[in-house]
Amino acid sequence: MSRFLTPLAASLPSTVPFVGPETQERSLNRPFRARLGANESLFGPSPKVLAAMQAAADQVWMYGDPENHDLKAALAALNGTTPAHVVVGEGIDGLLGYLVRLTIGPGDKVVTSLGAYPTFNFHVAGYGGTLIRVPYKDDHEYPQALLDAARQHKAKLIYLANPDNPMGSWHSGSVVEDMIANLPDGTLLVLDEAYADLAPPGTMPRIAPDDPRVIRFRTFSKAYGMAGARVGYALAEPGLAQAFDKVRNHFGMARVSQMGALAALHDGEHLARVQSLTLLARARLSAIARTNGLTPLPSATNFVTIDCGRDGDFARAVLRETVARGVFIRMPGVAPLDRCIRVSLGDESALSVFEEVLPQAIRAAG
Amino acid sequence: MSRFLTPLAASLPSTVPFVGPETQERSLNRPFRARLGANESLFGPSPKVLAAMQAAADQVWMYGDPENHDLKAALAALNGTTPAHVVVGEGIDGLLGYLVRLTIGPGDKVVTSLGAYPTFNFHVAGYGGTLIRVPYKDDHEYPQALLDAARQHKAKLIYLANPDNPMGSWHSGSVVEDMIANLPDGTLLVLDEAYADLAPPGTMPRIAPDDPRVIRFRTFSKAYGMAGARVGYALAEPGLAQAFDKVRNHFGMARVSQMGALAALHDGEHLARVQSLTLLARARLSAIARTNGLTPLPSATNFVTIDCGRDGDFARAVLRETVARGVFIRMPGVAPLDRCIRVSLGDESALSVFEEVLPQAIRAAG
Repeated sequence: MSRFLTPLAASLPSTVPFVGPETQERSLNRPFRARLGANESLFGPSPKVLAAMQAAADQVWMYGDPENHDLKAALAALNGTTPAHVVVGEGIDGLLGYLVRLTIGPGDKVVTSLGAYPTFNFHVAGYGGTLIRVPYKDDHEYPQALLDAARQHKAKLIYLANPDNPMGSWHSGSVVEDMIANLPDGTLLVLDEAYADLAPPGTMPRIAPDDPRVIRFRTFSKAYGMAGARVGYALAEPGLAQAFDKVRNHFGMARVSQMGALAALHDGEHLARVQSLTLLARARLSAIARTNGLTPLPSATNFVTIDCGRDGDFARAVLRETVARGVFIRMPGVAPLDRCIRVSLGDESALSVFEEVLPQAIRAAG
Repeated sequence: MSRFLTPLAASLPSTVPFVGPETQERSLNRPFRARLGANESLFGPSPKVLAAMQAAADQVWMYGDPENHDLKAALAALNGTTPAHVVVGEGIDGLLGYLVRLTIGPGDKVVTSLGAYPTFNFHVAGYGGTLIRVPYKDDHEYPQALLDAARQHKAKLIYLANPDNPMGSWHSGSVVEDMIANLPDGTLLVLDEAYADLAPPGTMPRIAPDDPRVIRFRTFSKAYGMAGARVGYALAEPGLAQAFDKVRNHFGMARVSQMGALAALHDGEHLARVQSLTLLARARLSAIARTNGLTPLPSATNFVTIDCGRDGDFARAVLRETVARGVFIRMPGVAPLDRCIRVSLGDESALSVFEEVLPQAIRAAG
């Protein structure tokens, strides 16, 4: 280890939040037959996005607009707010990092769910925060327990993903509204809405743009099919939103990505098509699970979490045998969630591969 | 201001390192006629880069490889080292941020030159470090003074850009090698080589890949003409290089940018062409300055810094009048460097616009 690291940096583990599918492909020495592990959109982006990106390629000699002016204006219009309430950044991952940097110092407490998004935990640990993890209840994040823990530990942040990853479960907007109303003074709700565009009506809470108690995160990586562009955004009251300017990488957005995201917002038809395909693919994937004696959990996302009906060792074996047969999937990391595997929605071609492989994997897993 | 900010975050100013040209265009209410302020490459990227990016656009539904495996392998081969010595990140700006985060805590001292790269200073302040600024000497960064200040203040980092921005000056590689040999124990040299590909032979120091005293930064934003792709890299001994994995945004690289950068490394002819065009454009831009009674400084970069021959107020007036006439340029921020304006190299079309505008701007500046 380099002797120049700060004590905090030196103390951090070298583990990474996720191993990428490319790493696994290099290790398997062949490409995956189906890529269903990272909740990417196999339905792809809008053709208008592709056209915009291809047209913008020859502008790559120019830095992107560091203010993300046009994209912020479009996002503000979409969300019924003003550009001063919008932060654009390098995916929700990047924005969560900035938020934790702005709010968490060594010893500050942060509440999340046991088994929830590891990248958020990576950022909290990375800035010296202390994580308090509350168990899920019936495969849902548990609002009352999160609030109780925040009150007990005087936490600065509560992380809630709604809909949830990795379980695919969700709460109605009114549950989140109640949660906000009952936040302890001094606690900010970090509301990860990456799957917002794929959730049933009524899932998104009504939150006044100037409410200082909550910051929402959205992304172009899921429903918009642009994970590789790295464009996420946050909605918060202007005092918090503009604080990101104190620390963010002002020239961090790729210009081609900015252009692609802007084009995506102008193709509502494509989004509606993806939403329809999502409903069909959820049903198809759930049927595959049932046919094989497994239990698909209800999903408000672009993946289905499948209860393998036994313990974590069995689900890990099913995962390992599925991956060994060329299908990239992932699974929750901790009990009792780890009785499940998590399979992203796919087009018919990818789902057929999974349909072929799953019974073999279950047999091999014993 | 949000009440959730840490004391450090709350103390940071809301100023940004650079105002982007798009912001100025919105304020001028028309596009610039020539974009010569951000040291972008008007010679553009390789046609192979454009083709690779256009071909990769329909992969945008996939996250990029978080290990940057193929790009790191190619960069290691190019630089005669191993992938374990290479870090890829969101431009040098992003990588400098990660480095400062890894090495600087509140009160730690950092030495740089008075008037050198503001974005580095932004990061140091952002992590609570204390900046010590050493004056330039004869428009060059001053190695002995930087070393003396580091020794006196027990600095953890010295920042040196070679070639330098904003002055365009450079030291021979042997000067940098001497500097490394004389670093105080406990001081890491942060060697920003953004303009490496455009410098005269002999400018790049020979540094053993495992030397723990220095970390070098390179970019695809300058000679490769891909500023908007946001791809930079660092070369350091593996203990330091791999420490970036503790804090970086692992999925922060745009997939299309990864593909473009890889393609750029496979077009040596384009790079050679840009290097030739650079020599011609430096001569042409210098001649324009001289014709107007100004003094172009020698340059090892893709810009020419032009001494306007009077004080900072006069140079600021020349800049203002140039910008008002539709030519985006910048200038050094502090005396005595601020007697100069900084003009990026352009193609003949952009330089002709500057040639037309400069005498008008000088007249208007009085």
